[in-house]
Amino acid sequence: MIQVAVMGHGVVGSGVVEVLENHRDSIAKRAKEEINIKYILDIREFPDSPYAQKFTKNFEDILNDEEVRVVAEVMGGVNPAYDFTKRCLEAGKSVVTSNKELVATKGAELLEIARNNNVNYLFEASVGGGIPIIRPINQCLAANEFVEIAGILNGTTNFILTKMIKDNMSFEDALRMAQQLGYAERKPEADVEGHDACRKIAILASLCYGKHIYPELVHTQGITKITLDDVAYAGAWGGVIKLIGQVMKLDDGRVDISVEPMILSRESQLANVDDVFNGILVRGDATGDVVFYGKGAGKLPTASAVVADIIDCVRNLKTRKFVYWEDGDASLVRPYEESAFPVMIRAKAEDKAAALKKAEELFGNVKAVSRSDEKEGEFAFTTGDIAVTSADAAVAELEKAGVTVLSKIRISDL
Amino acid sequence: MIQVAVMGHGVVGSGVVEVLENHRDSIAKRAKEEINIKYILDIREFPDSPYAQKFTKNFEDILNDEEVRVVAEVMGGVNPAYDFTKRCLEAGKSVVTSNKELVATKGAELLEIARNNNVNYLFEASVGGGIPIIRPINQCLAANEFVEIAGILNGTTNFILTKMIKDNMSFEDALRMAQQLGYAERKPEADVEGHDACRKIAILASLCYGKHIYPELVHTQGITKITLDDVAYAGAWGGVIKLIGQVMKLDDGRVDISVEPMILSRESQLANVDDVFNGILVRGDATGDVVFYGKGAGKLPTASAVVADIIDCVRNLKTRKFVYWEDGDASLVRPYEESAFPVMIRAKAEDKAAALKKAEELFGNVKAVSRSDEKEGEFAFTTGDIAVTSADAAVAELEKAGVTVLSKIRISDL
Repeated sequence: MIQVAVMGHGVVGSGVVEVLENHRDSIAKRAKEEINIKYILDIREFPDSPYAQKFTKNFEDILNDEEVRVVAEVMGGVNPAYDFTKRCLEAGKSVVTSNKELVATKGAELLEIARNNNVNYLFEASVGGGIPIIRPINQCLAANEFVEIAGILNGTTNFILTKMIKDNMSFEDALRMAQQLGYAERKPEADVEGHDACRKIAILASLCYGKHIYPELVHTQGITKITLDDVAYAGAWGGVIKLIGQVMKLDDGRVDISVEPMILSRESQLANVDDVFNGILVRGDATGDVVFYGKGAGKLPTASAVVADIIDCVRNLKTRKFVYWEDGDASLVRPYEESAFPVMIRAKAEDKAAALKKAEELFGNVKAVSRSDEKEGEFAFTTGDIAVTSADAAVAELEKAGVTVLSKIRISDL
Repeated sequence: MIQVAVMGHGVVGSGVVEVLENHRDSIAKRAKEEINIKYILDIREFPDSPYAQKFTKNFEDILNDEEVRVVAEVMGGVNPAYDFTKRCLEAGKSVVTSNKELVATKGAELLEIARNNNVNYLFEASVGGGIPIIRPINQCLAANEFVEIAGILNGTTNFILTKMIKDNMSFEDALRMAQQLGYAERKPEADVEGHDACRKIAILASLCYGKHIYPELVHTQGITKITLDDVAYAGAWGGVIKLIGQVMKLDDGRVDISVEPMILSRESQLANVDDVFNGILVRGDATGDVVFYGKGAGKLPTASAVVADIIDCVRNLKTRKFVYWEDGDASLVRPYEESAFPVMIRAKAEDKAAALKKAEELFGNVKAVSRSDEKEGEFAFTTGDIAVTSADAAVAELEKAGVTVLSKIRISDL
């Protein structure tokens, strides 16, 4: 019998307890050991819980109990999760987590501590919720070089964009609906500003390239400025707007990494990933494109990923899993300004024909995009590949020529 | 340095050698050991190969060389692969394979031998080519009960159906094109009659439910009888025809398992899996739906899955991976005749209105489906859930009433 502790009794934490209890026998069979929850850590009271006697408010109870071999950290946030995780690892306990913020900001350090203490630090649930992605990247695709990873990594923004695309709902209304349904938090910034997706792509990039890529190095742009007009023009062009986290390996050894709204062709395998679903495309040099699709969040999907990691730890109490990356720095990432890609620009001008002619001068070969119920003076066009700095300069010139640029959205080749 | 042998130097086998050589350093890093190919077994001569000195025609060279710890069996077919695999496992060598026929027919026995000899028998490449599916099911989803698995498991038939649906190409023409492109073999029966998909769903079912489900217990129907008229009516109904391998857990502990053409709503996540791609939907009670999508065949995707298994064996020379199922028998499978599902029936009659009325009497509530360029006397309708035996009886009655039933295709709720 292996004793474990669950730190945090929120949505995911209570799900972990539920899955461990409800699947006790099949889990024991797979783990080759019975697994028992000895402690549940939470500062709140749960007097009516059937597990009431397992609760503690004192982290030291867990830390100092040598029987506890594996700890699930499902508290979220950096503090005190960082301190607790560090001390558990140093005490020779394996830790599993769904805490993407902690892994994205302190992963290299915690993985190093785990290695030095010959224990495991696993985080399958930190990306893609219940979708197996960390482990397949790490193991199944071991014989690949990763050319690119791109994904719809945040279910909340994908739900909002889906409502905008399919139901013509404004961003504000869609956000309100997401909040009512419990998909978005009252303070939705982490989701709608792209921070959550940023942490996830930073974790995937670190795992693939073996060096920590910190979230602050990732150009991150959310979906708050996307309007129904943008959605309509993307549709007229033959695409949909999705919030994409993407990392590509460059020939010089650096990576190109960003989170931003992108227009995807309707033919793209990620274009049909709708609602709260996540989809992650992994492009390996040998395996080609593999897409993983499923619910990226939610109590039971995420909890089942945490429990899978617990099982893995129990099965590997004496051996270490090969999940590791070194520390990294800004030199790993190509500055976003140097990236080049096509964009769609939506603008307004009194003389549309003259404005388009000016755009052609400034951006090179452009293609006009029109929609059925175009507003007075409104127009849009797509460009070829253009560096971010050049595009910004061209936009400024265009505005000097009396054109109001309303939006500029990246077009993806996915 | 760990010595391995590769048995078979066909498409997959030569790919395995290529991946092992081209990714030597990154593989050594992940396996924590350098991996060296000591032997390549093939009855043919490869005098111009850069690895010419590694070739042998004598299996005993591999069997008797104690240095060889891991063997990749990529020969295909049951004989002599079965005998070779057995003897390698008995000699204490781990074996990895892409050979779905062997795993589907002899899996339980070989897994038992592996267990008794404390070695591994891994077969990630046997299903889904380069798509990681065996390992995620086995590990990441360990905390789930599997409610259902359904997939497009054969790239050749999916390519043919895609050509029929999108380019209005006949089955024969699409098959010829697939053969010209190297997607279909000169003798295409294993693909087009559904045997390949049958082996794959049998493997997935055995893995999920822990007991060997033999291919001969799986109702298997290919796509050779699907016509462009069927495709058109499916389209008019709002769907596409796909060859689906499917297994569902029943309340009585048995499984419902089959391979057959099914009509999927265009909204289904599997409906957009086109061309030679595979898509596999795994429905877990905790994780919900997870879909895996990618190239299900091809030299490098499949080879990279074999190499990932080799790496796993090298990393676990002293421990066993938990991949195992017991032997099974016919009592595990509900006879296909007892299954119930809706069908679409396409038929011909002189008096269509009378025929539809008769259909209503026989099948219960039916819905007519019509298409724009309907042929003389042709009509189609869908039914509600109906047991296979009842549907067959109703078809016979309908024919007695002077109606020619042209096709009957299952409608999936996926």
